[in-house]
Amino acid sequence: MYIPIILGTGRKGRQSEKAANFMMQETTKAGLESEIIDVRDYRIDATDSTGESPQAKKLAEKIVKADGLIIVSPEYNHGYPGELKMMLDMLYKEYAGKPVGFCGVSAGGLGGSRAVEQLRLVSIEFHMLPIREAMYFSTVQSLFDEKGNIKDESYFKRVETFLDEMIKYIKNNIKGKSK
Amino acid sequence: MYIPIILGTGRKGRQSEKAANFMMQETTKAGLESEIIDVRDYRIDATDSTGESPQAKKLAEKIVKADGLIIVSPEYNHGYPGELKMMLDMLYKEYAGKPVGFCGVSAGGLGGSRAVEQLRLVSIEFHMLPIREAMYFSTVQSLFDEKGNIKDESYFKRVETFLDEMIKYIKNNIKGKSK
Amino acid sequence: MYIPIILGTGRKGRQSEKAANFMMQETTKAGLESEIIDVRDYRIDATDSTGESPQAKKLAEKIVKADGLIIVSPEYNHGYPGELKMMLDMLYKEYAGKPVGFCGVSAGGLGGSRAVEQLRLVSIEFHMLPIREAMYFSTVQSLFDEKGNIKDESYFKRVETFLDEMIKYIKNNIKGKSK
Amino acid sequence: MYIPIILGTGRKGRQSEKAANFMMQETTKAGLESEIIDVRDYRIDATDSTGESPQAKKLAEKIVKADGLIIVSPEYNHGYPGELKMMLDMLYKEYAGKPVGFCGVSAGGLGGSRAVEQLRLVSIEFHMLPIREAMYFSTVQSLFDEKGNIKDESYFKRVETFLDEMIKYIKNNIKGKSK
Repeated sequence: MYIPIILGTGRKGRQSEKAANFMMQETTKAGLESEIIDVRDYRIDATDSTGESPQAKKLAEKIVKADGLIIVSPEYNHGYPGELKMMLDMLYKEYAGKPVGFCGVSAGGLGGSRAVEQLRLVSIEFHMLPIREAMYFSTVQSLFDEKGNIKDESYFKRVETFLDEMIKYIKNNIKGKSK
Repeated sequence: MYIPIILGTGRKGRQSEKAANFMMQETTKAGLESEIIDVRDYRIDATDSTGESPQAKKLAEKIVKADGLIIVSPEYNHGYPGELKMMLDMLYKEYAGKPVGFCGVSAGGLGGSRAVEQLRLVSIEFHMLPIREAMYFSTVQSLFDEKGNIKDESYFKRVETFLDEMIKYIKNNIKGKSK
Repeated sequence: MYIPIILGTGRKGRQSEKAANFMMQETTKAGLESEIIDVRDYRIDATDSTGESPQAKKLAEKIVKADGLIIVSPEYNHGYPGELKMMLDMLYKEYAGKPVGFCGVSAGGLGGSRAVEQLRLVSIEFHMLPIREAMYFSTVQSLFDEKGNIKDESYFKRVETFLDEMIKYIKNNIKGKSK
Repeated sequence: MYIPIILGTGRKGRQSEKAANFMMQETTKAGLESEIIDVRDYRIDATDSTGESPQAKKLAEKIVKADGLIIVSPEYNHGYPGELKMMLDMLYKEYAGKPVGFCGVSAGGLGGSRAVEQLRLVSIEFHMLPIREAMYFSTVQSLFDEKGNIKDESYFKRVETFLDEMIKYIKNNIKGKSK
């Protein structure tokens, strides 16, 4: 199974990169194929939303191949980062039928849960299957050590539950599965 | 396929009943098995939310059998009716893996779209699969004639698209299917 | 200033009652007039939503007098309790121009933040002024001792910030103020 | 009163420009001072979100002076345009206490109502006062003639109600008012 991980912020000093790296590490550990799709590599001008840009085509290739998708998103002012939305909006039909799991990231204690809710509604419009389980990386500044290792052991259990559900949704779902 | 239709308001003079009847008629026409689950028949006291009430048990029987679910809900003040939420909250695990489609109803022109969005988020928590297609019954007071026939022909095409997607989600989905 | 506190769940064993009592205690300490409006005392049948019931009239009296409103709500399946919505939907024009602050309650770690977001959208429809600050009572089962005293000291600072903002919104707002 | 209008999409062929122009025309007609703040003039790189960019400073000047704000936003996949969110996220404290009204734009029949709901939650985080009234420009492609004149007369009444509420919120609100 190929389940790429979208890193949904391009901000300098972005803490979400640590969360994305953690998800990448655990996804690989679970025997899944993955890679990080960094929003910084898919920036387009706002005027160019035709899906015909090289960025859109490059993204489309990966999404089409994916069995499912993990989206790591910080919460900015109770919503999602604009650069993430611009990237997601470049495509449409490519997402159809794919299970998607969300990982919220926040400086505060609520784990980006509001951004996750807004993104779930966007994902339904893409005909995706938002899974129930989610990862919430709260107080992210102090959650990882300087080597990027997670300090709270409970996240290993959480990510297991999360990936189990991703796999279950993918297996239950015929259309999204790779042939 | 058995796809019951929840009528999500108990209010006197409820217009949503017409929308539910229309959905029932079209679901049957499409060769699907269905029935209306009227929120009025599942009212519990707020103190009794254990899932052990006769109402909860009766609802559980139907949900467990269902291949998918249609929820018809008016929009009250940008949200869903309280009585619908009380009914849905009686159960949890019974919903898992079932595709669910929403039909919003409103007196105004926006078809209950805000209630639909809020309900979609609730349905994800139930491990359901909210489908992308939705029905929006706007200005419902004048949408049906006195016999309950819909006056706007375009709804026949819309309901076809809606049911096609329901069926597709059900067929694609292994777990929710009846054995 | 009179700022009543709505206790938004009627469930047996409701943990939100502790949060409401804490808010009552702190509101009084801050020199504000308050009282708990318990959703259990305002239950109506779903068919009777005319605003003409004795419950609606009793609620209307309190809301009309209020300078602002505090709503304590648990989160059930990412949404608000049905009994709370039924109570709120009994009235409309009485809410106009009143600042409203939300207190989310949850068994998990996200403090009922999703229910708060959904309720904020409902409150805008009532022409209310939802304040930015909110209280999030996470893992509520272990947050209070057996006497109902809060165990996490940080909540005293939080409630101060919350009430300061409530008061500021009320003072800045001419219409909602008591004459 | 100075109430600038944010045009929230930078896409080529954007239909929302017509809605923004209509709002500009009607705001001026009502004797209010206004101007269109075009998201195209405030584009930053995703890495630069410090609020120290020339774009952020230019926006801050306008927002600080504003008595209220009108945001015209199309709905893309049930959410707001990424470029709009990036622009809004450049600032924070400058928004506090300002009433804000939303104008949704859509190709379909639901007037961008889902984007409006998501933006309202963002605006509360900014300590803004989202007004209840909203403008919904449905099926926008055929709503204006080739000169940009609106073809549906009912919008003149709607915009009057909308601006009346904006003015009322501004007048009722002490803090947001210009000194």
